[in-house]
Amino acid sequence: MHLNNAEKIRYNRQLILPELGLAGQNKLKNAKVLMIGAGGLGCPVLQYLAAAGVGQIGMIDHDVVDESNLHRQILYNHLDIGKNKALVAQEKLSLLNPLVKTDVYPFKLNDENASEIIKNYDLIIDGSDNFKTRYLVNDICVSLKKPWVFGSIFKFEGQVAIFHPESANTYRDVYPEAPDENTVPNCAEIGVLGVLPGLIGLIMANEAIKFICNIGETLLGKLLVYDTLENDFKIYQLIQSKQQTAEKTFKTDKNVATEIAFDDLDQLGTYYLLDVREEWEFEDFNKGGVNIPLNLLPQQLHVLAEEDKIVCCCNYGNKSKIAVKLIKDQYPDKEVYSVKDGIEEC
Amino acid sequence: MHLNNAEKIRYNRQLILPELGLAGQNKLKNAKVLMIGAGGLGCPVLQYLAAAGVGQIGMIDHDVVDESNLHRQILYNHLDIGKNKALVAQEKLSLLNPLVKTDVYPFKLNDENASEIIKNYDLIIDGSDNFKTRYLVNDICVSLKKPWVFGSIFKFEGQVAIFHPESANTYRDVYPEAPDENTVPNCAEIGVLGVLPGLIGLIMANEAIKFICNIGETLLGKLLVYDTLENDFKIYQLIQSKQQTAEKTFKTDKNVATEIAFDDLDQLGTYYLLDVREEWEFEDFNKGGVNIPLNLLPQQLHVLAEEDKIVCCCNYGNKSKIAVKLIKDQYPDKEVYSVKDGIEEC
Repeated sequence: MHLNNAEKIRYNRQLILPELGLAGQNKLKNAKVLMIGAGGLGCPVLQYLAAAGVGQIGMIDHDVVDESNLHRQILYNHLDIGKNKALVAQEKLSLLNPLVKTDVYPFKLNDENASEIIKNYDLIIDGSDNFKTRYLVNDICVSLKKPWVFGSIFKFEGQVAIFHPESANTYRDVYPEAPDENTVPNCAEIGVLGVLPGLIGLIMANEAIKFICNIGETLLGKLLVYDTLENDFKIYQLIQSKQQTAEKTFKTDKNVATEIAFDDLDQLGTYYLLDVREEWEFEDFNKGGVNIPLNLLPQQLHVLAEEDKIVCCCNYGNKSKIAVKLIKDQYPDKEVYSVKDGIEEC
Repeated sequence: MHLNNAEKIRYNRQLILPELGLAGQNKLKNAKVLMIGAGGLGCPVLQYLAAAGVGQIGMIDHDVVDESNLHRQILYNHLDIGKNKALVAQEKLSLLNPLVKTDVYPFKLNDENASEIIKNYDLIIDGSDNFKTRYLVNDICVSLKKPWVFGSIFKFEGQVAIFHPESANTYRDVYPEAPDENTVPNCAEIGVLGVLPGLIGLIMANEAIKFICNIGETLLGKLLVYDTLENDFKIYQLIQSKQQTAEKTFKTDKNVATEIAFDDLDQLGTYYLLDVREEWEFEDFNKGGVNIPLNLLPQQLHVLAEEDKIVCCCNYGNKSKIAVKLIKDQYPDKEVYSVKDGIEEC
């Protein structure tokens, strides 16, 4: 299907770009994209893909608009509170660009419906906020051989990648197993600056367009880690290897965080106490040990190289479980513990 | 002025972020920000700053919504065509976040009104699309000692910086003089992918928030150059020096592009012919010489180190004038020419 005259006028500024041109705009028109999640990441992705002229856009979300979403989910306003996000998003997109066909799925993506929905699209974009959905998207995309754009945010940091089962890694190569849901805080618990999902969503939309039009250098087989607080922008090349995946999976199997009550720590003998709370929390009150805030830990793991027995602690025992996983991933043979329920109430 | 209960609910996810918290949200509430231009950059900046809770937002734009804006200026839809952008933007923001106070200036920023308008705000964000406005903003901000966020886009590349006359560089340190308006193509001539101003606008909004709240590492005194096609993200430290500025200005004075008709080239004797068109244009048709596309030239200038006399050419004689400026900035003593009216019609 080629562009009609209305489309040629509307997309003129893209048509005259030599790198995109009529060929690229036609590819956008013929693309079928599914957006999973119409929240902080989904809103800007949907807005810009619809504006850019992606021909068919599906959106799936079971959630309803809440007042605390409005500071970052910019498709919605106070009149939309209580309404289903996917339905409202469809309404807003139809007004933004009536030339785009939209499909709406106002329910949760699950094991039963995922395959039936995903099979209708060429490119899947995951803007969900939980590991369960992300692994489901990955596994269905692997089985249906569909490419998908991954995006996630945590505090001030965003990650983006494109996975294509036919030619590159899968999400499980990067993150072999889902962490325990209880160990991973979400936006509601840890907070988020409204502009972060906007910024990461725009990078996802940009990658989707480049991938569809086959222009430029995409994040296929790479992982972007962008710290928007410090303006630190890093792209990692992902290594694809069945053997490596097997090893990683094996490592992860041993990764169950061993919990120990603070009062039982004496039983361990000599150990290295690692407090993974924020600096100001540590300064305010601590139980001794060394303070490396959780978000700095991945870059500081070498500090632990010589330690055999490590005890991680935080306020409530959640962050320290994530710390145990990070340490065990790097040093599977070390003995690593998490202080159960944290040190707050000790 | 402190947050009321409605604001505490709406901005909850930002309040619980330790880096931002109540102190940061109060700073946002008390901030007065002026957005210059409500186009491709202005739309996402306005949308996210209003959503995040900036207390007072002014917007100035004389332009009306055109159909060819809709693929990137996501505050507008087809019902807004022909209406003034600042007025429509104000209406959309009031719906998006009624807790924010908005001021609207539906006319052009010029030498007469700039100072009167700008003096009412704490932070200025320039999303205009022309050098005249940008230098005006810079010069007024210098005289009123106001900080401002600079952003610009060109093809697939964006630039962002924060200038603060009290503590760091001014825009004229980076770009001492405005190029001839005729030598610089705008979006209408050269095209733009809709998602690019979105992405750069979000970076500008993020910098504005960090600057207002005084958190993280901002682009104050730095220049971000982000090639979104190749995912190349570079931050340059700007050096502040009165002497350097004087030198730069001096260099630029000599930077007037000398034009020469293609038929007169023989008079030059031996010269190095540099074709700055795209690769595919060069392959399609050329007049000999070496092809370095204009957007690659800044990284390739060393190729010219040994040449004394250089002639730049392109299709119509505009890109080659920019090339002359780039070369003269690096090598002020070389003899550099631009082929008048280009080689298209030769």
